[in-house]
Parts: sequence; C-alpha cells; structure tokens
Amino acid sequence: MSTESDIRTPDAAHDGRLRIEWAAREMPVLAQIKQRFLKEKPFSGIRVSACLHVTTETANLALALQAGGADLVVCASNPLSTQDDVAAALVDAGIPTNAIKGEDERTYYKHITTALNHNPQLTIDDGADLVTTLHTKRSELLNDVIGGTEETTTGVVRLRSMEHAGKLTYPIIAVNDALTKYLFDNRYGTGQSTLDGVIRATNVLLAGKTLVVAGYGWCGKGLALRSKGMGAHVIVTEVEPVKALEAAMDGCSVMPMTEAAPLGDIFITVTGDKHIISREVIMLLKDGAILANSGHFNVEIDIPSLERMSCNKRCVRQFVDEYTLQNGRRVYLLGEGRLINLAAAEGHPASVMDMSFANQALCLEYLVKNCGKLGSKVFAVPEEIDKTVARLKLVSMGIDIDTLTPEQERYLAGWEEGT
Amino acid sequence: MSTESDIRTPDAAHDGRLRIEWAAREMPVLAQIKQRFLKEKPFSGIRVSACLHVTTETANLALALQAGGADLVVCASNPLSTQDDVAAALVDAGIPTNAIKGEDERTYYKHITTALNHNPQLTIDDGADLVTTLHTKRSELLNDVIGGTEETTTGVVRLRSMEHAGKLTYPIIAVNDALTKYLFDNRYGTGQSTLDGVIRATNVLLAGKTLVVAGYGWCGKGLALRSKGMGAHVIVTEVEPVKALEAAMDGCSVMPMTEAAPLGDIFITVTGDKHIISREVIMLLKDGAILANSGHFNVEIDIPSLERMSCNKRCVRQFVDEYTLQNGRRVYLLGEGRLINLAAAEGHPASVMDMSFANQALCLEYLVKNCGKLGSKVFAVPEEIDKTVARLKLVSMGIDIDTLTPEQERYLAGWEEGT
Amino acid sequence: MSTESDIRTPDAAHDGRLRIEWAAREMPVLAQIKQRFLKEKPFSGIRVSACLHVTTETANLALALQAGGADLVVCASNPLSTQDDVAAALVDAGIPTNAIKGEDERTYYKHITTALNHNPQLTIDDGADLVTTLHTKRSELLNDVIGGTEETTTGVVRLRSMEHAGKLTYPIIAVNDALTKYLFDNRYGTGQSTLDGVIRATNVLLAGKTLVVAGYGWCGKGLALRSKGMGAHVIVTEVEPVKALEAAMDGCSVMPMTEAAPLGDIFITVTGDKHIISREVIMLLKDGAILANSGHFNVEIDIPSLERMSCNKRCVRQFVDEYTLQNGRRVYLLGEGRLINLAAAEGHPASVMDMSFANQALCLEYLVKNCGKLGSKVFAVPEEIDKTVARLKLVSMGIDIDTLTPEQERYLAGWEEGT
Amino acid sequence: MSTESDIRTPDAAHDGRLRIEWAAREMPVLAQIKQRFLKEKPFSGIRVSACLHVTTETANLALALQAGGADLVVCASNPLSTQDDVAAALVDAGIPTNAIKGEDERTYYKHITTALNHNPQLTIDDGADLVTTLHTKRSELLNDVIGGTEETTTGVVRLRSMEHAGKLTYPIIAVNDALTKYLFDNRYGTGQSTLDGVIRATNVLLAGKTLVVAGYGWCGKGLALRSKGMGAHVIVTEVEPVKALEAAMDGCSVMPMTEAAPLGDIFITVTGDKHIISREVIMLLKDGAILANSGHFNVEIDIPSLERMSCNKRCVRQFVDEYTLQNGRRVYLLGEGRLINLAAAEGHPASVMDMSFANQALCLEYLVKNCGKLGSKVFAVPEEIDKTVARLKLVSMGIDIDTLTPEQERYLAGWEEGT
Repeated sequence: MSTESDIRTPDAAHDGRLRIEWAAREMPVLAQIKQRFLKEKPFSGIRVSACLHVTTETANLALALQAGGADLVVCASNPLSTQDDVAAALVDAGIPTNAIKGEDERTYYKHITTALNHNPQLTIDDGADLVTTLHTKRSELLNDVIGGTEETTTGVVRLRSMEHAGKLTYPIIAVNDALTKYLFDNRYGTGQSTLDGVIRATNVLLAGKTLVVAGYGWCGKGLALRSKGMGAHVIVTEVEPVKALEAAMDGCSVMPMTEAAPLGDIFITVTGDKHIISREVIMLLKDGAILANSGHFNVEIDIPSLERMSCNKRCVRQFVDEYTLQNGRRVYLLGEGRLINLAAAEGHPASVMDMSFANQALCLEYLVKNCGKLGSKVFAVPEEIDKTVARLKLVSMGIDIDTLTPEQERYLAGWEEGT
Repeated sequence: MSTESDIRTPDAAHDGRLRIEWAAREMPVLAQIKQRFLKEKPFSGIRVSACLHVTTETANLALALQAGGADLVVCASNPLSTQDDVAAALVDAGIPTNAIKGEDERTYYKHITTALNHNPQLTIDDGADLVTTLHTKRSELLNDVIGGTEETTTGVVRLRSMEHAGKLTYPIIAVNDALTKYLFDNRYGTGQSTLDGVIRATNVLLAGKTLVVAGYGWCGKGLALRSKGMGAHVIVTEVEPVKALEAAMDGCSVMPMTEAAPLGDIFITVTGDKHIISREVIMLLKDGAILANSGHFNVEIDIPSLERMSCNKRCVRQFVDEYTLQNGRRVYLLGEGRLINLAAAEGHPASVMDMSFANQALCLEYLVKNCGKLGSKVFAVPEEIDKTVARLKLVSMGIDIDTLTPEQERYLAGWEEGT
Repeated sequence: MSTESDIRTPDAAHDGRLRIEWAAREMPVLAQIKQRFLKEKPFSGIRVSACLHVTTETANLALALQAGGADLVVCASNPLSTQDDVAAALVDAGIPTNAIKGEDERTYYKHITTALNHNPQLTIDDGADLVTTLHTKRSELLNDVIGGTEETTTGVVRLRSMEHAGKLTYPIIAVNDALTKYLFDNRYGTGQSTLDGVIRATNVLLAGKTLVVAGYGWCGKGLALRSKGMGAHVIVTEVEPVKALEAAMDGCSVMPMTEAAPLGDIFITVTGDKHIISREVIMLLKDGAILANSGHFNVEIDIPSLERMSCNKRCVRQFVDEYTLQNGRRVYLLGEGRLINLAAAEGHPASVMDMSFANQALCLEYLVKNCGKLGSKVFAVPEEIDKTVARLKLVSMGIDIDTLTPEQERYLAGWEEGT
Repeated sequence: MSTESDIRTPDAAHDGRLRIEWAAREMPVLAQIKQRFLKEKPFSGIRVSACLHVTTETANLALALQAGGADLVVCASNPLSTQDDVAAALVDAGIPTNAIKGEDERTYYKHITTALNHNPQLTIDDGADLVTTLHTKRSELLNDVIGGTEETTTGVVRLRSMEHAGKLTYPIIAVNDALTKYLFDNRYGTGQSTLDGVIRATNVLLAGKTLVVAGYGWCGKGLALRSKGMGAHVIVTEVEPVKALEAAMDGCSVMPMTEAAPLGDIFITVTGDKHIISREVIMLLKDGAILANSGHFNVEIDIPSLERMSCNKRCVRQFVDEYTLQNGRRVYLLGEGRLINLAAAEGHPASVMDMSFANQALCLEYLVKNCGKLGSKVFAVPEEIDKTVARLKLVSMGIDIDTLTPEQERYLAGWEEGT
C-alpha cells in the first residue's frame, strides 16, 4: 500500500538525516531495540499510522518500527511542531509523511485523514486527534485496528473519557503513564525544553523575573524546578489541593491566577485544561507580560478573547506576537499559544524521548503479541516494559546499581523481625 | 480501666506541656479536628493503644483523641525516640504512658505489653511492633479489635507481608500512604529532621562533604534534596532502576554502595531494608566516616559486624560512638544506628506531623464508623480524608487556590474537542 | 566625516529594528540615560569608534550615544557574534557599521581598521582588539584620543598588561569591573546565555549529564550555578586555590582537567587563558564529548591540535563540527570554539546588558567631562556611576529598598557602642 | 605571669576535651600549623589576650598558640556563646579562661578586664570589645601591645571607625577580610549554623515558610542560600542597591522591612547595624512571628521596645521567649536576640573555623615577625597567608587543582595576542 506524502522542503532531507543521526546519539535504548527489531521483524507487514510531533526523535522511532517490518505512515500531531527537514528525511527513507510546520487546521486534519487512509492496524497518537478522528469520521476503518498507543497526558485524559463514554473500540496503551515516561519526559523534558522555547523566542533573562506556572503536574513540577534553577521567582496556580501544597513546600508562591495576573512577567500554562489565561486574567496583566503555553492544545490561553480585546496586533520577533489591549497595555503571545517547546525550540531532548519511545516501541510489539486478547480499554504500560526501559537506560549511562541480597529480599518479604 | 505508666521524669510535666503547646502552634489542622472531636466525641469510651514516637506532635494527637472520648494508652515505637518531658506531660494529662528514652529492648517490649493489656479496640502503630506482638504473643486480645492504623512505610511493608501470609486479623489503614502524609512527612519532614539530627550530633559542615544517601524513596528524595541545599555532593545508592534514574537526573551521583563506600564522608540509610552498610562496606570506608540511619529500624547498618570488626569503641560526643576498626580506621556511628532525627533531634517538625496525624485522627474515626464493614486487609486512606487534610492545611497556611469553572470541568470530561 | 559600512544583508534592517526595540523593552536604565543624552548632547560632535559584539543590545547603546550627539562608527569584536539584521538596522539608522557574521580574520581586522579610520576621540572596546591595533598599527591616531572603555575581563587583563609594559597612551575605564557589570552580566548573563547557546546548538538534555566548567571566576560561577539548576553534575577545574575551594563548597566536584577529561559529557571553558582543552586533554576525552567555549577568545580549546589529531571532520548540525580522532573517538566542537552564547545564541539577555551598557554610556560621558585630567591608566568605574546604575535598575524593576536611619548611620560610623 | 580563671563547671573538662578533639578532626590546616609552631615556638613567652567565642574551635586555636609558646588568656566575646565544658577543658590545659554561658553584662566586662590584666603584647578580638575597652579604660597598657587581630565584620567596622577617628594606637589585622575567612566562614558557616540555631530553638519546618533575611552581605547571602535549600521562600531587605539587585537576581523577593513585616514567619538579622526590627516593624508582625539575630551584637532587634510593647513575657521553650504585644499578637524572640548560631547551637562548624583560625594563627605570627614595622592601622591579611590557607585546605580535602603552564602564564601576562 503506497501512501502519498505532503511536506514542505523535500530537498532538506540531507540536513534532516544529519539531525536525526545527532538525536540517535542520545537514544541508545531505542537503538538497542531497533537492532533486535531488525532481526525479529515483529511488525512484519503491519500497517501503522503514527500521529506524532515530527521531530528528530520521532524519526528515530519511525526508523526503528520500519526496521521491525512496519508499513508506516506519519502525520503531525500539532500544526506548529513539525521540523520540515526531518519530514523530508523520513520521506527520503521511504516513510510517507504528511506534516508541514505552520500548516492551517484544514491541512492538519487533511494530513490525519491521509494517515488514516493507510487503513492502520496499529495507531500511535499524541493528543488523540487521530484516534478521535478515526472513531468519529472514519469508523469504517476501526475493524482492522489491533490496538494503539497514546503518548501524552492530554490524550490519555481524552481516551479515558471515551472509554467511560463507551466509545472506545480497541485497546490503547497509555504510554504516558509509564514511570520511565512521565517522570522524565514530562518533568525534565518539559522543564528544559519549555524554557528553551521561551528563551529562543524572547532572549529574556529569567533571573529576577516572576514566572507563573499554571499547573503543578509533572510538567509543571519540572518547569518550576528549572525556572528556579535559572533564578526566577516562581508562582504556581493549581486546582488540586495536594499539588498546591507540594508547590508551596517546594518554595513556590501559590495563589489563584487572578492574584498572580498582575505580578507575573512570564506566564506558562501546563494544565491540560482550557482558558487558564482567561479574559478576566488578561485584563489584569501588566504591560509587557509574556504568555506561553506548553500544554498539548492551544486552548489554555483564551486566544479568541485576546484577539477581541486588542486594538492592534503585530509580530515583533519570530514567534512573538504583540497584542495591544484596549487598556493600552501590551501582551506578548509566544508561538500562537501552541506548545512553545516545539513551536520555538526543538521539543524534548532526545535523551528523554529515548525512554518514551522505547516504551512506545515495546508497547506496540506487546499489542501485536497480544492481538485479540485485550479489551477496548485504556491500559497501563506493562510493568516489565517500564523496568526494562529503566534498566537499559541506566546501562547506557554507565550507571551500575545495587541488587538485593537474598537476606535483604527475605527481610522485605517478612514481618516477624521488629525492634 | 486504669493503666499503669512507666516514665523517667514525672516532674518534667510542665516543660513537656509547654513544648506540646509550642508544637500545637504548627498543627492547626489537627487542632480543628480536635475541636470537632470535643463536640462529637466519636471515640466515646473506646479503648485505644498507641505505639508511637513519644514526641510533642504525638502528644497533640493523643490529646485530640482524648478530647474525642478515647480511653487511650501510649507506648514508645522506638527505644531512643522518647522525649521524657512529653511522656511526663501525657501522664499528667491523664493519658497512661510507657516510654523512656534509651530503654533497653526488654523494657521496650514490656511497654508494648502494658499498652496491649489495655485490651484495645483500636491500635495505632508506627513500625508494626505492637500489631505483630498482638498477633503473635497476645492473640487472645484480637477479638475486641475493631481496626488500626499504621504510620510508616516499614510498618506498611510488614503488614502487607502479614496480609499476604494470611495472618492479619483486622483492618488496618496505611496512613503512611496518604498523599498528604508521605509527600510531606517522609519527604520534607525526613529531609530536614535527618540533617538536623546529624548536625546536632556532629556539628559538621555539610558544604563540600560527600554525603551518601542509601535509598531514593520519598525519604531519600527529601534527604538528597536538602543535602544538596546545604552544599553537599550527594551520592545515591538504589536497587530500583527507575528510582536510580530519577536520582541521576536530579543531579546526584548514582553507584553501588561498595563504590560509594570509599568516597563518602557521611552515610545515611533510608531504605527500610537491612545491612545496607554491611561488613563488606565497612571494610571500604575511609578513616573518619560517619554513619547514621533514618530508616525505621536499626538494622540498616550492620552494627553487630561493626562491633566485631572493632578493637576499640568509645563515646566521643553525645550520640557519637567512635569505633576503631582493626585496619586502624575510625568509624563514627550516630545514635546507635536508630533513626537519627528522633535520637539526636526532635523528629519531624510539627507542621508535617499536623497532616500525618490529621490523617490518623480521621482514619481512626472512619474505622469506628465502619466497624464490622471492612475485611482484614491493609486499606488505603480514603481519598476524601486525604483531600480534606490538604484543603484544611492550605487554609491554615493562608493559601487560596483556583477552582475549575464549569466550562473547564466539561472540557476535562469531554474528548471531542481537539486541535 | 562619513565612514563606509560593510554588512551582509542591508535589506534586513526592518527585522533588525524590531529586534532592537524588543531588547529595548528590557533596557530601561539605558533608555533613561538616552533621554537625558538627547537633551544634554554630551557627545556633541565627538568621534567614537566602537568595537563590540553587534547585537540588539549594542544597537541600543549605539543609539543612545547617537542621541547624545556622538559621531559613531561600529565594528565587530568577534568574527562570529554579529547579528546581521542588527548591523543592517544600524546602518539604516545612520550609524556606519562594519560587521558580518562568520567573517574571516582578514575581514575582521579590515573592519577594525575602517573603524579606526574614523579617527576616534573615544574608543569602546570588548576584548581590546581595537585598542591594541590602534596602539600598534595606527599609532599616528593616538593623539586625538581622549579616552576609552573596555567591556570584558579579557580586555581588562590585556590593557593592564599594556599599562604595566608602559604601552598604554590614554585613559581607559574598565567597565567590566563595575559591580553592576560583572556581578550580573558575567554571572547571570553568561550563566543563562551559555547554556542557551549549548542547547540551541545541540538540544541535549542537561539533567544527568556531567558538565565540566573550566574556570570559576564570575562567568564560571554563573555557569556552574545554572548548570546545577538544570540538573547537571558539575565538575570545576581551576588554578586559583580560593576559587577551587569555593567551587567545592558550592557542591561542585573539583579536580584537574586531565582527571575531568574522561568523565565529562560537555566541557565549557571560561578561563580567559589558552589551551585549557589541550592536546593531552583531547586524548583523554570519551567518545561523543562536546566542547564549547564561552571565554572571549577562541584559544581556550586547542583547535589547531584538534584539527591535527583528527582523521575526519564534518559539520553534523549548525554550529556542531564532528571531529573523528585517530583513536576512533568522536569529539564535537561547538561554534568553532568562539563564545558559544554569541555564536549559537543571541548573547547576554538585554536585562543585564542594560546595566553593562548604562555603565558604558556614563563612563564615556565621564571621560569627556574629565578630558585631559586623567593619566594613561586603566581606571575603575567611578563608584557613583556604579551605584547610580544599581539604583535606576531597582526602580525599573519596581523594587523599593530600605534607607539607613540617622541613628543607624551614626551606629555604623561609631565604635564606642559594644556589647 | 599567672592569671585567674572564672568558669562555671570545672568538672566538665573531660567532656570539653573530647568535644575539642572532635572539632580538631575537621581542622587539619590549623593542626598542621600547630605542628610547626610546636617546633618553631614563634610566640615564645609572648603574652596574648584573646576575646573570642569560647567554643571547641577557639580551643583548638588556643592550643595551637600555646604550642607555639604563647602565654595566653581567654575571655568570652559574647555573654551567651560560651560552651562551659570547653572553658573547663581550657583551664585544665593550663590556659586561664574567663567565660560563663549566660553571664550578665557586668561579668562580661569583668572577664574582659581580667584578660587585659594579663598585660597583653598581642590581642585577639571578635567584635572589638576588648580593643575598645583597652583603648578607653586601660590605655596605660597600650604601650606593650605589638599588634592584634580582629575576627568579624562588626569588629572591623568599629576598628576602621577608630582608625579614622585617629584613636587606634597599634596595628590590627582584619582577619575577617581574608578571602579564606569571609567567603567560607561568613557565608557557608553562618548559613548552616544560623539555621541550625533556629531549628534547635524551635524545631519548625522551614519548607513553605516565609523567611526574611535582613542584610545581604556574605552572612546574608549564605543564610538566604541555605534557607532556599531548605524550601523556604526568602525575602531580603537591604540598604545597598547592588546587594539588593543581587538578591533579586538570586531569586529572592526584595522589599523594605515594613513591607516584609506582615509577610514573614521567621526574621533573621545579619546586618551589623541596630534596630533593623524596630518598634514600627514589630507593630506590623503577624501573630506567631519568630525573631532571631545572627549579627554580632544583640542590637539588631530593638529588644527594649519589644519589652515595652509587651503586656506579657514568658519562656515557652529553651531559647524561646514569647512576648504578647498589646495588640494581642505573640512574637517569639530566640536566644535573647544574641547570635542564634552560638546561643542555641554550637556556632560555625569546625571546618570553616579551620580556615578562619589558620588565618588568625598566621597573622599573629606575622605581627610578631613585623614587630615595630607596621603603623597603627587596620591591615588586610597578607595575600600570601590567604593563599597558603586555601592551598593547605584543598590538600586536606584531597582536592588537586591545575597549575598554569608556562605558555598559559605568558599568555595572561601578554597583550599582543588577540583575535
């Protein structure tokens, strides 16, 4: 089955390939899995449609699946996250790809449709746009699907809602919820790459700035940690009491967003919910406030309201739009409110994606091996896969750890020995 | 039912009371619960045997239960953690108490027996010594027991082993596993108070020292965080690959204990397992190495081996024993290897115990209300209790947080809205 | 006197102007000085030759001097640090500019010569290339020079050597040595922007990496601080015992470079000296080691030796050259060994340059006012200028501070009042 | 010349000796100097009066000077900092000592007088009480004095005032101003030991607390750093603009004390000035605020005003006095406002005092060697002494550092080599 491609710069394949190789240096776990796939061909002839951020790391996952025999099509999981040279390299490597940085919403969904036309047996999704489109617009294709994986918190939340609504029709593994995924990718990956995106977009000094982090989940925790590491004062907003307490005891200021609004220099949303920066909040911002989002969808900042409230808008720097409000204040929106680490920077560093995508690769293999045995539910990553990824990563970092002695194992298993 | 007391300094009650009041300043959540208990008397006439570290915070829990009508007896959960003036104040307040700082093992178990003679309907335990003694030596009393609570990781591990072995005969709630307990008490409480214990015992500068943390659970995470906060180089040893990876990405060095042994200036064990500092490790220590434990039991350092390997032992400072090994090197053992934060300092600060003990108080009330309805298992803290504690704590800290708007709730519950 | 310009992209003036305005948002102190200059014209008709990194921040300084009446020419102080669109905007604003990103050494010195042809009365230098060229190749112009300023540590070291050798012929103020310059620009500026450069060039995750910082001066301190803030293990190499001790007590590992060589994942030099990464060190690097420099000159890494030791060299990513050594290992050199924060990123954030360049502007004014009164020496920044800059910066940040009461002033001035 | 002693517990000499030996473990630089003094006897027969905090570290200095032949008398430099068992051990070792923990002001000055009766040729001071008493009350003894040393910032400020007033009659070396003193002792020593004092006195959790640090000199910097390391929100108050800016960019909140007053949970003064916590500030404190001082004198908190404003005062815990203000709020004063690290804890850890007192020992030797050659001024520590201390300390820590190659030295000394 041959599938068409739609990319911007076919002649950038060489640059893309070099950058993919560069990322591969930091992805030793996935590389090891790829070597095994090359021999064992676990996906021989299986059709896979992957809706992912088209980055150098994703390319390495795609190449590993291809090495395992998969018949793979790739499309973008976000209109602004595509690296065009990587897309070119994928096509050059024989993997049909549909992704253009900055594509409009129509093109975005057209690309998803193209990927679905591949009639997938496995789906890989990041945010659940492909899976929801498949269930709502192309349900005739559902019969052939063995299973799927989901990469991110937002997608898992949507899929659980689908499951609860009785709408999910095949098994999906929530790769996001593997310890070796969210503890590292969501925390350290988002922490570093979000600041990277903000700095590339603005070149502002973080030291001494007041930075408001909306949401203290794993992404928010990583972002707050790194922001403090750069010398910023960090304010956290939350809706969950336990997370709010954690933030306070981690040395952050905690308050409602309307209180934070007039204090912040930079606002970054990572909540997975909508309109965190609402019309009311925008009214309270000080002149020069910078707004960015690092959550999956561009709904966390209420951009339609921002547009309506402004009497002028201009692009003052790449990825920086200046809105002049009717109250005379200027507000700067970065990367159109799309996840800033992918819009203005290169997304998560390869080293954490190595673990996330090793989980992806092994979970896809698990789905094939357990074809027909799993119900139409959202599944956790099998613990053994999670531990395997951790062990391989430690080896790749040259880190050796202790092993329980038999005496220690007995002690842990017993209860008689006390004071 | 009148129960005897056994304490060291009955005339220290006044000092104890003042210190209990001092702790109460930082325990507003428990205070609020106590006020309700005073009116509602949920424990009216119920016999409770509590085996806990006899500290100012525990005293506040005991007084809250007494206010709720409980007929309470207290004994120590560790031979070296008792604050003698607090014990005196408890007796003075009409709560029979059996606890003497530095008591030997025989006296320790005699005190537990006295507490069991109270014929408890509820048990409160910290490490499961009372519960295991009850099950093995005084099983005739089991019939009257409604349920119990367990405060610490080690106790929960033992109780789960009992449950798996089919030995547990009544429901026990694992208070330790409440988010508002372990995220704060185990992490920030252990982090601060363990260093406090080490510094009070030794007065050493931590900046520039190499500090080895054995175990990267919540206690180990807190301890490593605070140690880095004091300028130490932190080495972490672990047996779990995911935790080892976390430690590495948190900026700690990770290696097996035998590699860490010749590098460390200070070693602190928080694993919940035995012989982490084994004979083999002791042989590799450098001259002047300091050993401390902050895990529940004094088995993490192999003290019997240390004794056998030494040609001389002397106390060089309160809570500091110098062992001269046959290889001529000197090793310093703090607080006899018992949890150093209680042996040499005052245990966790009241502010975190406020949450832990609010969970205790509410879980005991829950056990009474659900008397007969629960099986003989280890139960999680009901989520509603956990969230209530978090909410009350935030209020007491003067922290206000956001609430989801109806639109935001709908968004989270839905799955249709995508890119 | 009209001077020629030599820039790459004259039509990029609009983009450059927007970016200059963007930087201006973060340079309120300089803006305030510019407003005064506009009225007072302290440089009316005075010829100024400025050899600086041609960045958005420098452009704001140039525009402030122009507002003050200066007849200004600009050239680059580094072959790889020019922002071509900024150069275009400067020319467009009527300031002759000679600077092309990536220019070769011949062009670099040709541009300096063009700037000197302006027959300057004031010189502004960053690294002392213009001043040394003036003294050695164009000494006929020295007579007209009133004085100069020097921006960076390396330049100050060179000028002090000139002074000691009796070669300096006019007064130069070491702007670098102002507290409001080096405490902020060298520390927080270099700290953030160097990591920014490394991340833009490589997109590597810093968490868990071993990062070797050569030199623990103010730049090194800032770099180590931020690197730890990003989760890296930091090794510091030093030649000064006191700085080495500081590094150790700040929680860094301290060792000679030959010991660090096989341990490091990333090496960054900020010493101001040459061949820190010497042939011997290169031989010890592990496969995949990344080398970068953030010191003024590209001599800190022995690039000629690296070239000779390699059997292959290729560019694998923008600003990343892969060298394959004869021992088979690959070494990655970033930005040709030139200051990575300017080569691969945008240099110090405007917020710190605001202070550095406010000092520049006020020191140039001071030189004009004190024309003929100062000897041919390297002078410190007048304390009053330093304090003024600090005060204005605080005001711009909305920070109010305390003032000594008369009683407190008396107390500090007295000595009689004791215990 | 035999001098009397006045101490509290002569029979505590054994305990004191053990603790002095314990400190000696962490003072290898001083130990090495002591070995040389033992052979060279640089102080043979010289009378020395030392006014210092009578701690285990001071005892090691005293023993080193005694080993060098000094005829030494010791008195306390603060009424609340004496460790009584150490005083006993000093007397037992043949060093007359006059110091009692908690002595009143009359006894304090009587002890200084006793020390002066020794007719010193060298003085060692910490805060300048001995030197000012000598100049004002016992000026007949000034003739015999060769020189002196001063240990702390406050003393140096007072002595400089004396010098400027023309009152100083002999040379004094400002040991405080050695890099190997203030960068470590004032910063890391005060940082750790002040928090140690606060925690021993109160056992409060620092995580999540708002801690106000008054003064951002080296002591304040260390204190703020460690407080953030323990999870506190740090507010800094300052009068110097540059220091205030540093605090802001280090991630602290900066504001005037009257703004901080209603926000702080804990206030710690380290300014060296008086009435930082003034009557006006006290009025603004919230109920339960904790006040401590870690500056040299107990004048930083306006205790007389606090006493007058209170309707009740009681001691609620050792080192904690509760004041109930007329507005009903309670304020807790720690350690009577005296330096809390010595009042409630054990002062700076031995490891930093090793450097401070190595400077003391070498400066005293320098004064003897240069007897008669120095004027009546406050002198800096000779650079060679400073560097020697740093070098010896590094060796004792097992840290090796780099040395400049001849090529590197030439490069630093030259100015010709540029881009």
